[in-house]
Amino acid sequence: MKQYFQDLIVQTDGVAVHSITREVEQFVADCGLSNGLCQLSVLHTSASLLIQENASPDVQRDIVRFLDAIAPMEVGRYEHDLEGLDDMPAHLKTALTQTHLTLSVRNSRLVLGTWQGIFLLEHRTRGASRNVQVHLVG
Amino acid sequence: MKQYFQDLIVQTDGVAVHSITREVEQFVADCGLSNGLCQLSVLHTSASLLIQENASPDVQRDIVRFLDAIAPMEVGRYEHDLEGLDDMPAHLKTALTQTHLTLSVRNSRLVLGTWQGIFLLEHRTRGASRNVQVHLVG
Amino acid sequence: MKQYFQDLIVQTDGVAVHSITREVEQFVADCGLSNGLCQLSVLHTSASLLIQENASPDVQRDIVRFLDAIAPMEVGRYEHDLEGLDDMPAHLKTALTQTHLTLSVRNSRLVLGTWQGIFLLEHRTRGASRNVQVHLVG
Repeated sequence: MKQYFQDLIVQTDGVAVHSITREVEQFVADCGLSNGLCQLSVLHTSASLLIQENASPDVQRDIVRFLDAIAPMEVGRYEHDLEGLDDMPAHLKTALTQTHLTLSVRNSRLVLGTWQGIFLLEHRTRGASRNVQVHLVG
Repeated sequence: MKQYFQDLIVQTDGVAVHSITREVEQFVADCGLSNGLCQLSVLHTSASLLIQENASPDVQRDIVRFLDAIAPMEVGRYEHDLEGLDDMPAHLKTALTQTHLTLSVRNSRLVLGTWQGIFLLEHRTRGASRNVQVHLVG
Repeated sequence: MKQYFQDLIVQTDGVAVHSITREVEQFVADCGLSNGLCQLSVLHTSASLLIQENASPDVQRDIVRFLDAIAPMEVGRYEHDLEGLDDMPAHLKTALTQTHLTLSVRNSRLVLGTWQGIFLLEHRTRGASRNVQVHLVG
């Protein structure tokens, strides 16, 4: 059994959806793994991971709006407000999506559907440097 | 380390909750895996996976209704509407549940609680052929 | 490849958020695993797992309130009400969070961000004995 790790750094500059599909696929190719598991971990509590439609930017905008509506920034809505109006909504959006995600690798390729991409969701209104650890086991 | 793959095809004919527990358990038994991981991947963006109560069909109906209420089909509600009124709600319901799910195998059995089943959720109003890849590592 | 299993029992006495980070980290240390995967499975349908902010108890209270608002206990709201007013909301809160969660182990440490903790969420209003299976592969 072989294992490989990579720390993928994504610089964000506000609420957005960033595709990291190519970077993860590249790491799988670089390591030469034939079959195994690919474990992704976002090491934050106000950014998260999501497998979603990779073709239409309007889908990604609808997802951002949907999450905004379900966990709105609103004065007095949350007990936890010390770190800004966007902080508790960011934790809630993270809770509804994923911080840790496992994918299969089969025949040297990451197993994703034709329309599936891997996205990092930034939930804070200011930018941050986000660390996504990629871990291959196979 | 041994690895096994299976492509499980589920034909759906509209919004519904399909148990795939038996099929996955059967594949674990067929492969003769004692201990390891079972990785499930639904290769779509408008269908998803969920571990849920396996005994009461009314729980499954309540889940469908809950997801309908949280991401309703509504003209003008979403920017992405090119593929039908049910398409963007389907992406959102997928975002709130799972496309990739990992389970343990212990003593030749899939680790699930007594009341837990594995379900494929079809979120589109018309039928589709859904591919769930099952991957055993152990 | 080595594998280790532990059944972690958490006694709850009502709706609450229980940190299990230390217990899981201790098991990783006890097994002496250098690199690998840590699979967590909660074997219930009305309790779930969540990676969340570990520093502020007010974040945890806001999460409980958020889930209560999104899946409220309300007479006549759900078809499934045989097991009490809190049962169907508990299933829905479980559906929105996770029952099965995979983490990486790297250099003998569980891969979590500085502010990330692993939490068991109890969604039933009465106490229960909850079983979280921890499974190390590496």
